[in-house]
Amino acid sequence: MPNTFGKLFTVTTWGESHGPAVGAVVDGCPPRLPLEGADIQVELDRRRPGQSDIVTPRKEEDRVEILSGVFEGRTTGTPISLLVRNADQRPGAYDEMRDKFRPSHADFTYQAKFGLRDHRGGGRSSARETVGRVAAGAIARKILTLGGGVEIRAYLTQVHDIAVPAEELETFPTLAEVEATAVRCPHPASAEKMIERIKAVRSQGDSVGGVIECRVRGLPAGLGEPVFDRLEADLAKAMLSLPATKGFEIGSGFAGARLLGSAHNDAFESRDGRVRTRTNRSGGSQGGISNGEEIVFRVAFKPTATILQPQATVDVHGAATELIGRGRHDACVVPRAVPIVEAMTALVLVDHWMRHAAQNLIFKF
Amino acid sequence: MPNTFGKLFTVTTWGESHGPAVGAVVDGCPPRLPLEGADIQVELDRRRPGQSDIVTPRKEEDRVEILSGVFEGRTTGTPISLLVRNADQRPGAYDEMRDKFRPSHADFTYQAKFGLRDHRGGGRSSARETVGRVAAGAIARKILTLGGGVEIRAYLTQVHDIAVPAEELETFPTLAEVEATAVRCPHPASAEKMIERIKAVRSQGDSVGGVIECRVRGLPAGLGEPVFDRLEADLAKAMLSLPATKGFEIGSGFAGARLLGSAHNDAFESRDGRVRTRTNRSGGSQGGISNGEEIVFRVAFKPTATILQPQATVDVHGAATELIGRGRHDACVVPRAVPIVEAMTALVLVDHWMRHAAQNLIFKF
Amino acid sequence: MPNTFGKLFTVTTWGESHGPAVGAVVDGCPPRLPLEGADIQVELDRRRPGQSDIVTPRKEEDRVEILSGVFEGRTTGTPISLLVRNADQRPGAYDEMRDKFRPSHADFTYQAKFGLRDHRGGGRSSARETVGRVAAGAIARKILTLGGGVEIRAYLTQVHDIAVPAEELETFPTLAEVEATAVRCPHPASAEKMIERIKAVRSQGDSVGGVIECRVRGLPAGLGEPVFDRLEADLAKAMLSLPATKGFEIGSGFAGARLLGSAHNDAFESRDGRVRTRTNRSGGSQGGISNGEEIVFRVAFKPTATILQPQATVDVHGAATELIGRGRHDACVVPRAVPIVEAMTALVLVDHWMRHAAQNLIFKF
Amino acid sequence: MPNTFGKLFTVTTWGESHGPAVGAVVDGCPPRLPLEGADIQVELDRRRPGQSDIVTPRKEEDRVEILSGVFEGRTTGTPISLLVRNADQRPGAYDEMRDKFRPSHADFTYQAKFGLRDHRGGGRSSARETVGRVAAGAIARKILTLGGGVEIRAYLTQVHDIAVPAEELETFPTLAEVEATAVRCPHPASAEKMIERIKAVRSQGDSVGGVIECRVRGLPAGLGEPVFDRLEADLAKAMLSLPATKGFEIGSGFAGARLLGSAHNDAFESRDGRVRTRTNRSGGSQGGISNGEEIVFRVAFKPTATILQPQATVDVHGAATELIGRGRHDACVVPRAVPIVEAMTALVLVDHWMRHAAQNLIFKF
Repeated sequence: MPNTFGKLFTVTTWGESHGPAVGAVVDGCPPRLPLEGADIQVELDRRRPGQSDIVTPRKEEDRVEILSGVFEGRTTGTPISLLVRNADQRPGAYDEMRDKFRPSHADFTYQAKFGLRDHRGGGRSSARETVGRVAAGAIARKILTLGGGVEIRAYLTQVHDIAVPAEELETFPTLAEVEATAVRCPHPASAEKMIERIKAVRSQGDSVGGVIECRVRGLPAGLGEPVFDRLEADLAKAMLSLPATKGFEIGSGFAGARLLGSAHNDAFESRDGRVRTRTNRSGGSQGGISNGEEIVFRVAFKPTATILQPQATVDVHGAATELIGRGRHDACVVPRAVPIVEAMTALVLVDHWMRHAAQNLIFKF
Repeated sequence: MPNTFGKLFTVTTWGESHGPAVGAVVDGCPPRLPLEGADIQVELDRRRPGQSDIVTPRKEEDRVEILSGVFEGRTTGTPISLLVRNADQRPGAYDEMRDKFRPSHADFTYQAKFGLRDHRGGGRSSARETVGRVAAGAIARKILTLGGGVEIRAYLTQVHDIAVPAEELETFPTLAEVEATAVRCPHPASAEKMIERIKAVRSQGDSVGGVIECRVRGLPAGLGEPVFDRLEADLAKAMLSLPATKGFEIGSGFAGARLLGSAHNDAFESRDGRVRTRTNRSGGSQGGISNGEEIVFRVAFKPTATILQPQATVDVHGAATELIGRGRHDACVVPRAVPIVEAMTALVLVDHWMRHAAQNLIFKF
Repeated sequence: MPNTFGKLFTVTTWGESHGPAVGAVVDGCPPRLPLEGADIQVELDRRRPGQSDIVTPRKEEDRVEILSGVFEGRTTGTPISLLVRNADQRPGAYDEMRDKFRPSHADFTYQAKFGLRDHRGGGRSSARETVGRVAAGAIARKILTLGGGVEIRAYLTQVHDIAVPAEELETFPTLAEVEATAVRCPHPASAEKMIERIKAVRSQGDSVGGVIECRVRGLPAGLGEPVFDRLEADLAKAMLSLPATKGFEIGSGFAGARLLGSAHNDAFESRDGRVRTRTNRSGGSQGGISNGEEIVFRVAFKPTATILQPQATVDVHGAATELIGRGRHDACVVPRAVPIVEAMTALVLVDHWMRHAAQNLIFKF
Repeated sequence: MPNTFGKLFTVTTWGESHGPAVGAVVDGCPPRLPLEGADIQVELDRRRPGQSDIVTPRKEEDRVEILSGVFEGRTTGTPISLLVRNADQRPGAYDEMRDKFRPSHADFTYQAKFGLRDHRGGGRSSARETVGRVAAGAIARKILTLGGGVEIRAYLTQVHDIAVPAEELETFPTLAEVEATAVRCPHPASAEKMIERIKAVRSQGDSVGGVIECRVRGLPAGLGEPVFDRLEADLAKAMLSLPATKGFEIGSGFAGARLLGSAHNDAFESRDGRVRTRTNRSGGSQGGISNGEEIVFRVAFKPTATILQPQATVDVHGAATELIGRGRHDACVVPRAVPIVEAMTALVLVDHWMRHAAQNLIFKF
């Protein structure tokens, strides 16, 4: 089931960029959760195109329709089917892609794997597929908020070579701070430079990537299931399942490889009646299980593959040709990826919370 | 099934560091594969302790016993049960850990999750669990070699702050080059420095981490299953499921976030009758599917948590205390992690190869 | 994922009887399969209400909309989302069921499990859910037909105490023979009696059950995966997952328990260049794996729980009360269950075919 | 993972009849459960050969060794590896089966599926594989007993054509009543006849089948997950995954198809402060979810395929030949299947209990 994520709280997404609709089915949602379309819409609105002047102008209302699983304002424990119609389809704009493989896109690999492909806007490989993830993640998020007081906050820490100084992001950013700028970077000085850079790059028909950091607070100790379903393993999978991602690190990450053990270890202490660590190089997970500290991880995004410059490529017959990107694209997808990263995080956490509950709460020995 | 990895070719590992044995069950192995204990033993020997003067002196023969699934030298398509007895148990050496949480180990989180724990040498959270992974991976590897001519090669590119210059590792290293030094770094000058550093750090009772790079060649285009089971997503999960890992990146990785799209894209060309890319910043996967180029990824390992210096911590009652590491540990686990990284890679690739076969080879439309 | 069936070829159904729609997502469908709405519609038409004078008069066109996964008339290997709008909703007709538990329905158990329920027409527990199964099964069926020449034929062998004499159904019935009568019994004399019985029972406000036999021919030997995923185990699960089913038997079934081994064993012989059995008490599966003979199994359906007679029950507060069935129901659901049984059979077979392919076709040792 | 059963509480069995050992890995067992070898041994002793004069005289002590997952008498939440060495191997006794397919055994189908087979005593298809199921089931059973007061009782109701009159088994039999006779039939008069019949049939070198009924009491309402993972669907799969089974029915079963709805429906009433049904034709499950009444189901077993009479068959080259059964077999396997049926039932119930807990107990909305 390559289009399903999760074990107990599961989401199956479906849909192509220029098909009639995209959507998701959430199975395993606990019953009795208050849920209405607005809970989902608010997250889709953060993801949708056209929300600022630095993102794609594709016009999509992205109105979600809940087709099942909710009755009189509460989930019923049955599958929740979510549907979003595609409005602004321009299949004709993609005729050139029918025969040519766009560099660093999935055109060639889909053709190689499946023997055919829906070339219109990337078809299934388009980031439009993430509409279903964000919709499902909004439900997971509501569970975490109502059921556990868990907060998830993602934001940009880097665009191209503009990086927020680490020491200036020590406190947990508020949603307002993140949403204050079009790049979703809670450090205003950096945000301003990032926006300028994106505009500059876009004006050259080029693109840039960046880094998203995500933090989670309020999570209890005990979530994560070694040895394979470690919390960071499932987070890594979730993030690397997103389009354009090239890397994941938790806590000290790659920089941790440069530290001595004596400098890296997080000493334990008792604080506020709980076992706490003095530092958090572990990033909130030890041995694959949450330790009650903040979860902190980062995700690397490559520059958007579509650029408005001529590129060498081949066609489906293997003949050399040239291609110039068209269509409506983001010169930097990273700001719009913020709600997607949060959605995937919520999906991982709810799933693990339910798995933990299964093992630990019913049998009182 | 948190102790099972894979969907069609699956491995379930079991066992604790100081229990009677560790092992694995491989289910889904294709029938008729020639297999004998020696195929597995060769990889276990690469992983086992005591193989050089820079690793733990724990004495373990790690002799594998095949208990099922093989008949007259061939796999039968039924589960392959693999057993390795633990020989050098010194449970008494761990009495102090019964009550104290070792910093940056999994002692506290296992206690928080399960309400009890086998404290002896970390119990299930010990890297000794990876014996089962390596044994299973050896079978996967044989499939890749016999069935597809696929080669997997992992090696160290960094220990502490000693990193191999990227431009000096352009060719695919041979196994002999990797195994030539105790640190499994195919760049001799770097290897020498790494060994010195590990010895120096060990003499101070401290520890270091490092980075492993893994390359795969001979893999056909078409493996990987979007949208969630992308090849890099499953590789990331596999790697982050290993003890002490803090990060994963594929192709350009985190550095890719600093490039412009025009500099990052891999142009297509026809070469040797196939569609190839001129560069490989994608790391062999595009849209989550292998493109026939080399798979290239890196994994960050933190420094070993056990150090032979006094550390502040708390005991199971929350009282502040101090702990000095004892026992037989690696000051740097990364060299012994090389065969483990390769094993997990083999498991991911065989699983995806079988999944691909299911979808594409039987139905001729 | 309680609403998903299958391992490689999977279907996830969603939707409530009186919600806006019902549907399914098929994941894992092989690419390049020619597919259009009509392939699915033909099976939905066999299942839908109002098709004869012995079934419910509920008016449902049951027009299927393919929302994804098909491009220019062929499957793309991506999820196929299928949508059927509910037209003839009369939620008001079910107000009484809001508070009263209908005997032998799922009202009480859904309330007990989930703490709330969509009471309208049984909500999720309604057989309307099987629309998604039939739609998905139509795709599986096309694969079996095009890819393997496999035929699946289900039909009634019993209604109430009217049973077709076993010796009069020895040949594999044609679709035309099955569809010739409203009860889908290919034995005309029995069919006539069955129809009379259903009408008589209905006129008394009562209901009856029956038995469906299903046969599969053209299936190769080798499908089924011991020890747990035996072919008959997955068929049994598939059938007992259908509303109103109470039993499953394959080959000799319960009657086989009354035979001696010498009378029950199926002797092998060589016939037409293949290993064949002289008899087929095994029902086409031995040791959980198809042996190339006809698959033959039977499914028992209880009488429809809804009857138009007063019945004693309790309300949601536990108070004794009485309830008279209303709404538009089948006095005998079994004829409409025929395409559903076939659909589930097709889903099991395709899934196992793909699983078999994964293990056996790619690796040439 | 065809050798794994369950979703949250899972068992993976491995091993061949005449390999060095058989065993199982249980993953997902809740932590802190008191567990020692004796808890498992008592069930293995009920299953093992040689326990009475009507079963196979194969000598197997079947001593279980717990290799992991238990520490100081309690489960740790990590995988429990269970090992039973095969003692009484006589591989030479099976030389004839290397080339000849035994009628109604799995010899031919394993050969067809895998292209080779371990012919010794049936290899993996032998009922010896169920050692691992019984061992795992004993753990599940302990959970049900300690955690929920649930009782599972299976027993024979039929051997050949000797059937216990239904009205004489109305009360829930005690374990002592079941174990009182070698056939495990709690109706002494029938038991005596059954034993005589088995002995008579055995003396003719023939075999017989039978029927096991299984009842469960103390199960709360709410277990089972529609639409596919209905309680009876998972029970049916569990039972049809056992060797020699040909049918499954719950509650009224196939006989229910002969009743009118007015005679079949189970009226609700309030009793002892709970919603109860007056009758139990549903067999304890409605809509796929337990309703708090007794679970009652029956399983049909065919006669043992091995008979000590000459039978026509073919060899692996397709040539006609004859075969006379040898080796040590049960003329009727059904009595020894009783603890196996109970084990599978326990596995299904614990798994569903944990799944239910995941959805319903943690989130208080």
